[in-house]
Amino acid sequence: MLVIISGPSGSGKGTVIKKLNRQDFALSISMTTREPRAGEVPGKDYFFCTKEEFILARDNNHLLEHAEFVGNMYGTPKKYVEEQIEQGKAVILEIDVEGALQIKEKFKDSISIFLMPLTFKELATRLVMRKTEDVDTVIRRIRRARSEIEYIHRYDYLVINDEIESTVTKIQKIIDSEYLKPHRNEEYIESIKGDDYDATAVLLRIDDEN
Amino acid sequence: MLVIISGPSGSGKGTVIKKLNRQDFALSISMTTREPRAGEVPGKDYFFCTKEEFILARDNNHLLEHAEFVGNMYGTPKKYVEEQIEQGKAVILEIDVEGALQIKEKFKDSISIFLMPLTFKELATRLVMRKTEDVDTVIRRIRRARSEIEYIHRYDYLVINDEIESTVTKIQKIIDSEYLKPHRNEEYIESIKGDDYDATAVLLRIDDEN
Repeated sequence: MLVIISGPSGSGKGTVIKKLNRQDFALSISMTTREPRAGEVPGKDYFFCTKEEFILARDNNHLLEHAEFVGNMYGTPKKYVEEQIEQGKAVILEIDVEGALQIKEKFKDSISIFLMPLTFKELATRLVMRKTEDVDTVIRRIRRARSEIEYIHRYDYLVINDEIESTVTKIQKIIDSEYLKPHRNEEYIESIKGDDYDATAVLLRIDDEN
Repeated sequence: MLVIISGPSGSGKGTVIKKLNRQDFALSISMTTREPRAGEVPGKDYFFCTKEEFILARDNNHLLEHAEFVGNMYGTPKKYVEEQIEQGKAVILEIDVEGALQIKEKFKDSISIFLMPLTFKELATRLVMRKTEDVDTVIRRIRRARSEIEYIHRYDYLVINDEIESTVTKIQKIIDSEYLKPHRNEEYIESIKGDDYDATAVLLRIDDEN
């Protein structure tokens, strides 16, 4: 199962994803040409790379999706995601709207979640408090957020990230309930359809004994 | 929101529904021509009625759905459900496969859950332990169950009722996550699209001050 988490910069995607229980989920790590922010660890938060390296990966079809965002390139390396899915894990992709639409097109069975703070004021506050970008970048990110929210209806779920613990719980509930869709339980459905327990014989025997 | 819970007789629908938190849910009470089982309370478990009364309600279009089941008629009175939905409550309908398909056709936004024990042996055991029907009825109910499971893929969710508490939790998670679908949050989406907080002005002012 592929779980897409999108939302404007400052919506809290990163924090939420860090809190999700890692045993159940594999977290896809994106490639980006963006500069590392303070505290970001290469190979953990992102694979930081040059523009040339990014273009090479993209052109060699090594990316599941890619998008340009506020002047930087972002992409999802294909190999890791495919390996995790083969192992039956849910893979979480933190990607932007453009990448999300690409993934939904390729993986019909993916689940998409849009994360958003309650108001734009809160979004702006978070971006400013983060102190990782200059004012110009923050303004561009908020402008970008205005266009991103136009895509909310293309997502399967909308989670308002008002309080982090409650947001994490909501996302866990979404994933748990998605596992209960019939098409994700074909093995059980086959087994119950093929279950040839002869109730009639057993019941008639019980009835005779009484 | 309409929540349909179906599942063979003996799948535990009744027990599960009794355990769901009643504050969040309104439970629709069905009309039936079936005889009350030991312990069943008229007006609480069912509205028990004669065949003539049932036909009158059906022909006067007072039922949301109706179906015949092992020789008895079952139906959902329309008025109560409509009242609860107007009050913004989730209404739970415990109905059979035939009724569920009727409701899904009329209410595109309804959620349907199919409840099933792990095996037919367990289903038979539960029906026998219940001691409310004779062996012939139990055999007919199991035969009916075999045809009902053919419809699992028509349901939105499949819950294997292996352990009652876990089943209740699963159904609550399904309902909670369904509330996170974008089309059930139009009010928020409208408000955020209309949110005209002028981040640029505020941010430039902060920038000037620094």
